[in-house]
Amino acid sequence: MKKNIPYRINLPEEYIPKKWYNLRAEMKSPVPPLLNPATREPVTLDELSKIFCTELAKQELNTTDAYIDIPQGIIDFYKMCRPSPLIRAYCLEKELGTPAKIYYKFEGNNTSGSHKLNSAIPQAYYAKQQGLKGLTTETGAGQWGTALSMACAYYHIPLTVFMVKGSFMQKPHRKAIMQTFGASVIPSPSDTTNAGRAIIAKLGETSGSLGCAISEAVEVAVSNDGFRYVLGSVLNQVALHQSIIGLEAKAAMELYDEYPDVVIGCAGGGSNLAGLIAPFMGDKIKGTHNPYFIAVEPASCPSLTRGKYGYDFCDTGKVTPLAKMYSLGCEFIPSSNHAGGLRYHGMSPLISKLYDDGLLDEARSIEQTAVFDAAVRFARCEGILPAPESSHAIKIAMDEAVKCRETGEEKTILFGLTGTGYFDMSAYSSFIEKSMGDYIPTEAELQHGFEGMPEM
Amino acid sequence: MKKNIPYRINLPEEYIPKKWYNLRAEMKSPVPPLLNPATREPVTLDELSKIFCTELAKQELNTTDAYIDIPQGIIDFYKMCRPSPLIRAYCLEKELGTPAKIYYKFEGNNTSGSHKLNSAIPQAYYAKQQGLKGLTTETGAGQWGTALSMACAYYHIPLTVFMVKGSFMQKPHRKAIMQTFGASVIPSPSDTTNAGRAIIAKLGETSGSLGCAISEAVEVAVSNDGFRYVLGSVLNQVALHQSIIGLEAKAAMELYDEYPDVVIGCAGGGSNLAGLIAPFMGDKIKGTHNPYFIAVEPASCPSLTRGKYGYDFCDTGKVTPLAKMYSLGCEFIPSSNHAGGLRYHGMSPLISKLYDDGLLDEARSIEQTAVFDAAVRFARCEGILPAPESSHAIKIAMDEAVKCRETGEEKTILFGLTGTGYFDMSAYSSFIEKSMGDYIPTEAELQHGFEGMPEM
Repeated sequence: MKKNIPYRINLPEEYIPKKWYNLRAEMKSPVPPLLNPATREPVTLDELSKIFCTELAKQELNTTDAYIDIPQGIIDFYKMCRPSPLIRAYCLEKELGTPAKIYYKFEGNNTSGSHKLNSAIPQAYYAKQQGLKGLTTETGAGQWGTALSMACAYYHIPLTVFMVKGSFMQKPHRKAIMQTFGASVIPSPSDTTNAGRAIIAKLGETSGSLGCAISEAVEVAVSNDGFRYVLGSVLNQVALHQSIIGLEAKAAMELYDEYPDVVIGCAGGGSNLAGLIAPFMGDKIKGTHNPYFIAVEPASCPSLTRGKYGYDFCDTGKVTPLAKMYSLGCEFIPSSNHAGGLRYHGMSPLISKLYDDGLLDEARSIEQTAVFDAAVRFARCEGILPAPESSHAIKIAMDEAVKCRETGEEKTILFGLTGTGYFDMSAYSSFIEKSMGDYIPTEAELQHGFEGMPEM
Repeated sequence: MKKNIPYRINLPEEYIPKKWYNLRAEMKSPVPPLLNPATREPVTLDELSKIFCTELAKQELNTTDAYIDIPQGIIDFYKMCRPSPLIRAYCLEKELGTPAKIYYKFEGNNTSGSHKLNSAIPQAYYAKQQGLKGLTTETGAGQWGTALSMACAYYHIPLTVFMVKGSFMQKPHRKAIMQTFGASVIPSPSDTTNAGRAIIAKLGETSGSLGCAISEAVEVAVSNDGFRYVLGSVLNQVALHQSIIGLEAKAAMELYDEYPDVVIGCAGGGSNLAGLIAPFMGDKIKGTHNPYFIAVEPASCPSLTRGKYGYDFCDTGKVTPLAKMYSLGCEFIPSSNHAGGLRYHGMSPLISKLYDDGLLDEARSIEQTAVFDAAVRFARCEGILPAPESSHAIKIAMDEAVKCRETGEEKTILFGLTGTGYFDMSAYSSFIEKSMGDYIPTEAELQHGFEGMPEM
């Protein structure tokens, strides 16, 4: 007889994984390497170590070890919020009248309010181990900046955050929480860096973009002794750290003899999606299971569904290595009417490769009013206020569950609920007051973005 | 050998109590009854049932049953967020260098962000069972309004919230989250009620108070057929529902052979404190244990430390029953510079009685800059952003732990971390920017408040 499945599966702390899972080591066709933009040769450990902590640079380049030990100093911090709950969405199932079983892995259960903390902790930890003087980073909607501020406070490392100016102006409370955790917060583009000044000179008044903010943060890190840059998404090292989401989800489901038929995650830079799907994708590659994977992105920033797969810069100022990814072009800036995160021009090289190989089965884009409609419905029955980012996955999970109602299939659906929406109440207000609009870039706008990609 | 104590004790859902604990049934000296203000006689079930749901009115008057069954329809909702974690504050202990063991029961682990949900759920549930058309309530800082909005969304009951005007203006995001859960939100005092109009006529432009908002909410409930009023604190029924905090905390500690030497809670209306201490106070009354209880309140609204113990109205408009409580007078309005909740003029009759009897050992008041200083320190090491209300308890828990460092005593300290501070970032900002001030009412101001209390 099957065990009775609780609403929330809260595994005890012994279930925190002792190793991250490095999916790249299992892939039959490798993820294309990062390239040095000057030489167009694969970046070396030496080159990367000037930007990132040495240990993180090693992880970035490690394509051979399927499992990488998590140091005890990181596990101790993970214990403060992990394992995160795996929730059986009984109320949502009832609301939709679906025979599907819906599960979500809830990563908003820590003060930073999102999965970003999973990578912020190791990145701050390794910086401390290396004896660095400080870290720089960028943040868009603010989830990453908040998470990294928490981690840096815990490990006692100074942090400077370049915050996308549009977000800085709209979300003073995001700035305040980062400052509460001791970080310095600078709106980007700023006049404190060459990259920022160049972007202002070119674009004039702009609400900024993640790409701009990355350029500024990298510049400060590489031009100050003892400083390094950290990034909250896109990179292989981040996908590695985020594998803890999928590992815990899989362990929790196995306890109840469950395995997902469909796995759904929102995708901005791709870190949460990469982490959620990692062990399930490993099974698919090994041929032991065949789950169906869906990436969900905003219609206003559709890198997977409308982008080009090719080498591009990770930033607008073109100071970073080149990555092969689905991209809208490193100069693409999504409409300022777009609420929340998921506004990066590219997509993690790992996710891009899986999608190009057909292992990541499908990508869908959604307009934001449909996303908020799903978010409000979910909140009212499941009692969790989701982040706009996460709500992309909710929307598609609901769509899939409704299909099951129509076909009678009892599918097991797993999606990632990456975070909470406490700092997105302005967007919720505009949705409730019906002043929220949608935006889909025109073909001409996309074409303009593609022209900014480097010729290879 | 003692078991290894994890950072977070997350009990499985089977540990959700099946009964609330009614401390009044154990008390040797009874809590003085609510009085009808016209007759000065104890209120009857009939009278109370015109204001509250009948089942809640019965609970309000029940002084004989030590345990009251929790209906399954309530337990099913509790499962979405309970048992809440009991956290061992290893990082705070290390930060303070104390031999004390510090535990906190974290009630901010649900979307409403506070313990208020524990009573919102049953109050909405019983309203639904009674077939009511709608509920009215008031909210100050917004925790109660948010919690009740969630509960009413879940049980599909219309809700009108009178929100203290100062808070309504300062916290648009609190309003937005209540609206997201489908509630109507009206700033109080408003011109939609007789009570509101009278208060405006008397005081002119005012930022309002909980007492004003209660008057308005009660008026709307009693003058509309099929509506009832619900209250998030002060009442015996609320203390009853909140006993789930203490019951879970005690069960979790018992699993690890722990028992608190000191129990600390913040006190505004007294509901969280009453709930946290309930089973431990029961032990004290029975003589099986002798924990030391400390209530912590803001220096700007010091009902226990500087109030008078006597019969007073629960609201400013003087439409409610009279309760015997420590009070600053029902016309007392705390300084608008006071951030967060804990701004009620009175204190729950249960807590007041326990304090008057010396069973609640001590009350301390603190100024808000000291509270925020403790909050920021706590956030940086424990990785949770506390509500200002909860931070009163943090401050005193830290003080007690530091005393242990000095005396070498290995005390076990338990405090209530009632909620999160996501909607209090303006206050955090003003603390960080050093623009936050303190305020202590003068003797003359207190005297003016006492003059508003009814003559008995």
